Amino acid sequence: MTQPLTIALDAMGGDDAPAMVIKGANIARERHPLVHFLMVGDERRIAPVLDRMAKLKAVTTIVHTEEVIGNDTKPSAALRGGRRSSMGLAIEAVHKERAAGMVSAGNTGALMAISKFVLKTVPGIDRPAIASFFPTMRGESVMLDLGANIVCDSNNLVQFAVMGEVFARTVLGLTRPSIGLLNVGAEDLKGHDEIRAASARLRGTNLPIKFHGFIEGNDIPEGTVDVIVTDGFTGNIALKMAEGTVRLYSRFLRAAFTSTLMARLGYLFARFALNRVKDRLDPRHYNGAMFLGLNGIVVKSHGGTDALGFANAIGVAIDMAVNHFNDKIRGEIERLHAVPAESPAAAV
Amino acid sequence: MTQPLTIALDAMGGDDAPAMVIKGANIARERHPLVHFLMVGDERRIAPVLDRMAKLKAVTTIVHTEEVIGNDTKPSAALRGGRRSSMGLAIEAVHKERAAGMVSAGNTGALMAISKFVLKTVPGIDRPAIASFFPTMRGESVMLDLGANIVCDSNNLVQFAVMGEVFARTVLGLTRPSIGLLNVGAEDLKGHDEIRAASARLRGTNLPIKFHGFIEGNDIPEGTVDVIVTDGFTGNIALKMAEGTVRLYSRFLRAAFTSTLMARLGYLFARFALNRVKDRLDPRHYNGAMFLGLNGIVVKSHGGTDALGFANAIGVAIDMAVNHFNDKIRGEIERLHAVPAESPAAAV
Repeated sequence: MTQPLTIALDAMGGDDAPAMVIKGANIARERHPLVHFLMVGDERRIAPVLDRMAKLKAVTTIVHTEEVIGNDTKPSAALRGGRRSSMGLAIEAVHKERAAGMVSAGNTGALMAISKFVLKTVPGIDRPAIASFFPTMRGESVMLDLGANIVCDSNNLVQFAVMGEVFARTVLGLTRPSIGLLNVGAEDLKGHDEIRAASARLRGTNLPIKFHGFIEGNDIPEGTVDVIVTDGFTGNIALKMAEGTVRLYSRFLRAAFTSTLMARLGYLFARFALNRVKDRLDPRHYNGAMFLGLNGIVVKSHGGTDALGFANAIGVAIDMAVNHFNDKIRGEIERLHAVPAESPAAAV
Repeated sequence: MTQPLTIALDAMGGDDAPAMVIKGANIARERHPLVHFLMVGDERRIAPVLDRMAKLKAVTTIVHTEEVIGNDTKPSAALRGGRRSSMGLAIEAVHKERAAGMVSAGNTGALMAISKFVLKTVPGIDRPAIASFFPTMRGESVMLDLGANIVCDSNNLVQFAVMGEVFARTVLGLTRPSIGLLNVGAEDLKGHDEIRAASARLRGTNLPIKFHGFIEGNDIPEGTVDVIVTDGFTGNIALKMAEGTVRLYSRFLRAAFTSTLMARLGYLFARFALNRVKDRLDPRHYNGAMFLGLNGIVVKSHGGTDALGFANAIGVAIDMAVNHFNDKIRGEIERLHAVPAESPAAAV
């Protein structure tokens, strides 16, 4: 980026907030020299930490509020009472164009509810989706939805495909990203009505989309496609299953490397190489779930992440802003809507 | 087992059939000395291989047929024309009680369709489910459904829970297995109507079931519960996602261990310990997906497995037969049906 850019941070969201958020902002500042921060939260808790980081302090404005949305707050309650909270005011800053995007490690349901209410969806998008990166054998892919929409119809899935494609093109820099619909088999007859109707529409669309067709669960880590489209129920479970499987494998490895003297010795020799593997699968690298389809950039960080993970989430928000992701989504959706949506029954 | 037991084998199903099936039977014979085999398939191809294995030949009867169901055959076509195939006749042998169970590495859809048609479901079970073992931090868990039922209502999910519980008790030998419903969060309000209604019914049932409640994707490898209940769409994708993630991790490890001389040396020292990890995650150990809810034991082996994997699938069928799994299912389902099924709307 060549011009200053302001990112609003919910300083009070996350297990170790505000210290984790402030330290994360400091790491992001080193990586992105032209960024400014609006740090929203309790000034009495933010200022003492910031005082110890002169360079960060110089590019940060504190927006004081004492209100915080708890992790147990229901989305409906957050909507009613949370607009003046650290999260609510950070979203407000995006809406008022005082910030190019916002990042929060707070309550996901509350963040989605307030973001939707304040920022509204892009015209032509019925529902926003949560998207994230994923390590694969070929590099990384984007998967959406990861939990915002438990039940999806074919129109939702088609819109997710368009948003995912634009994301992969503008933010990941892929020239012609391929799109796959997550299913239980590759054949046309597999799956439920919604997914088959979505497939028929994606095959028939006039958008220059490279639609691969159906993919299966193992195709995600295989890197068969660049963008994986699924409903929020399946996507959430697939993502967490993968995270859990990486932990299981790591646990088994740790047990193996401490089981014998020979194995301990082997670990000593191989540890630099092994740390690279750990690094490639480190969830902190993939931290920062994007809320796509809103009139504004909202990035959700894992609540339990550390400063490094939070800095990566800030990096995602900056990438989306610098690449004008939202403007491009708008253009593509207008083109999509030039084709009439078919009913699922007609499309199968 | 103390009495002879006959298992029917679809000798022609699987990528390397019939050689893989025959070699697998030979491994299973060593492990289970009282087992007999009905080997169904092309005698001209089976007999020459069997002639080289005298001990196996002594406990095997060949049932000749030249018909084979291909991997691309649709379930409906298999039902119409596949009853005299190696797969169809092996199922028939279970139905006629000439075999206590059958194993096939052939076409999954065809196997389910013919099994359902010939064996019928246990009274009180609307639809059979596919179940399999899964390695976890605590040992192993059972997950169902893995793909037989793409769309499930709350009654299906409750029946899956009962079948999974009986399986864990009788075959895994757990005294009081815990059951979890796979969802996107642990709170009561999470998920779609069907899963919430199933949860309400499982909480209210008079069966002595240890219902844990909702679990998330990462709880599967964590081993939070012994039995994971889900619809076939989600279960299939979660299973394949985990398999793919294990392959991804293994690939990254292999690359790391060959990246430097030090790492190669480390591998040499640690390789015995590392082979144990590989072994713990080896899909061949978890080969053998059980079709639960049928009047007869049907086990599906991976099509691409080798003789060792196929022998494990035979072992699963033997365990189910020896432990009278199907009789126990019948008893539990009768008890379940003493409680009237609630409509999803009333249960939420």
